Amino acid sequence: MGKLLAALEKSVVKSPPLWLMRQAGRYLPEYRQARARAGSFWKLCMTPELAAEVTLQPMRRYGFDAAILFSDILVVPYAFGREIAFEEGEGPRLDPVRSVQELDLNPLHWHSRLEPVRDAMRRVRAELSPETDLLGFCGAPWTLATYMAEGRGSTDQRAAKLWGYRDPEGFAQFLEVIERCVAQHLVAQLEAGATAVQLFDSWAGSLPEKAFAQWVIAPTRRIVDAVRAARPGAKIIGFPRVATLEGYRKYAEETGVDAVSLDTAVPLRWAVTQFGSNVTLQGNLDPILLIAGGRALERAVDELLEETQSVPFIANLGHGILPETPLEHVALLVDRIKGPH
Amino acid sequence: MGKLLAALEKSVVKSPPLWLMRQAGRYLPEYRQARARAGSFWKLCMTPELAAEVTLQPMRRYGFDAAILFSDILVVPYAFGREIAFEEGEGPRLDPVRSVQELDLNPLHWHSRLEPVRDAMRRVRAELSPETDLLGFCGAPWTLATYMAEGRGSTDQRAAKLWGYRDPEGFAQFLEVIERCVAQHLVAQLEAGATAVQLFDSWAGSLPEKAFAQWVIAPTRRIVDAVRAARPGAKIIGFPRVATLEGYRKYAEETGVDAVSLDTAVPLRWAVTQFGSNVTLQGNLDPILLIAGGRALERAVDELLEETQSVPFIANLGHGILPETPLEHVALLVDRIKGPH
Repeated sequence: MGKLLAALEKSVVKSPPLWLMRQAGRYLPEYRQARARAGSFWKLCMTPELAAEVTLQPMRRYGFDAAILFSDILVVPYAFGREIAFEEGEGPRLDPVRSVQELDLNPLHWHSRLEPVRDAMRRVRAELSPETDLLGFCGAPWTLATYMAEGRGSTDQRAAKLWGYRDPEGFAQFLEVIERCVAQHLVAQLEAGATAVQLFDSWAGSLPEKAFAQWVIAPTRRIVDAVRAARPGAKIIGFPRVATLEGYRKYAEETGVDAVSLDTAVPLRWAVTQFGSNVTLQGNLDPILLIAGGRALERAVDELLEETQSVPFIANLGHGILPETPLEHVALLVDRIKGPH
Repeated sequence: MGKLLAALEKSVVKSPPLWLMRQAGRYLPEYRQARARAGSFWKLCMTPELAAEVTLQPMRRYGFDAAILFSDILVVPYAFGREIAFEEGEGPRLDPVRSVQELDLNPLHWHSRLEPVRDAMRRVRAELSPETDLLGFCGAPWTLATYMAEGRGSTDQRAAKLWGYRDPEGFAQFLEVIERCVAQHLVAQLEAGATAVQLFDSWAGSLPEKAFAQWVIAPTRRIVDAVRAARPGAKIIGFPRVATLEGYRKYAEETGVDAVSLDTAVPLRWAVTQFGSNVTLQGNLDPILLIAGGRALERAVDELLEETQSVPFIANLGHGILPETPLEHVALLVDRIKGPH
């Protein structure tokens, strides 16, 4: 069993498992080369041999304890038959969804459209040593809804919020459809070789309390149940980014996830006191600290290890690694987490 | 005494005082006309008769319980002698600050550069009835530092964080200089007729716990002390937007502010339980709910009033009102807060 899986099973290990959100990404020169060869981000995602290759790049360079499949949260709108366009220098674009009727609701079509992701997963699993864990992932329904309603990344999640506030039933139906596709894709990733899966709810933090309960916690709870019904004992990490501490508490207690990924602002001492060994914690170094490096980074890593030494823990950032991160700072982080032994 | 001041003195009133962040703004057709006549946003800010006029516009239309002077948080970098440029369709730009030596550190110069703000304040005070409160404001040092270090609004506050992580002493000195200018400008606004002042720390939420203590709480504490030394009993509202709940708790307990403005995600029940009548609460309707209108808005307003009925409270949004907000939704909000009496 890998160290990440052990932590998800609530083992407390001396030097915690380490991986980084977006570790297969633009800070790596070999990634930038692969991306240039592929011609587009989306082609890199959807071509199994290329996706597998960039997934393995950071493993070769740094020996992280877990690989995370290179993919994108927009594979779910793609599964629904939406076109995804990537303009150079801009984020992804898709036609805004106005009603569930605009979506291809056939689960067999979802499954066949996402075959390249499973193919990539199988390739990566075949390359990794047995003690190296492999993560699959999916966007959570609320965050996917913000992209799908807006047609792009949004700063204030306006289109999805307006839909939800004005037409609560229609929006609930939209989230439920997304839920089904997400659960199916998570199960498929586990079947294709993922040790565990992570749900990214990047925009969970902008919701008032009630909406958070309805649009973040409830769908996540149903997804966890559906995945466990299909794959008993499946390990699931949830990331309700920038939720309030009350939001994190309820999310951890009510969704059934095995681990909660914490953003940079969450005080680790609070989380350790709150959750003890009930939920594995993951996080939460500031990605900008990893750009800064030096004494500030060293001190923060030492504090992270100190504060989490008594609980099941996965070392990570509080958000994705940034393209400008110096390679040697990542090496320093890896060395310091692994320790002198 | 106005209702806002009464709430800041910890009175519990039956229908709470109401004002809206950015209430003098683009959702008002009369504002858009004034802005077009002025030719630029900055000219509107720095021309006392125009700034006074747009400050009064929402008061005439809606009769809010408090006016807030139309100004901008970038008047502080301007006081330091930095040029502020507003490109059409983009946010404000200024030359990034790399060291305190680049700033004009003469408080007499700060004072004279900000005379137009005080002039506008005096004009507004002269127009308002005595029972109508008038707010001044300033950006808080951390948030101002993010703009000044980046040279523009930033999504991840990178330049300021990098400065702070790499050069903690230099950055502390930078914050201290900003602190002095902020305190002076708050005092000046109170002398010019403001009933109370609000400190906007819009980017407080992105900081890890220790940085929050050093860069948000400590400077705010020193500003509150300095303002009260000059103006005993001065009333100060603080807004550490998107802080964690632990952050809000410490901010309220340690800075000495009279009131804490809450962002949209903060559960009011948590705040009421946490603070009781020790700190006045302000907030926190979702600005997007005010665009949505309808039953969702009505229900949220009723819950807001219900949850805060036993504590000193100022009704407001959790963030600034958005340009797309329908005028009739604001009227509905005002009516519902004021109640049938």
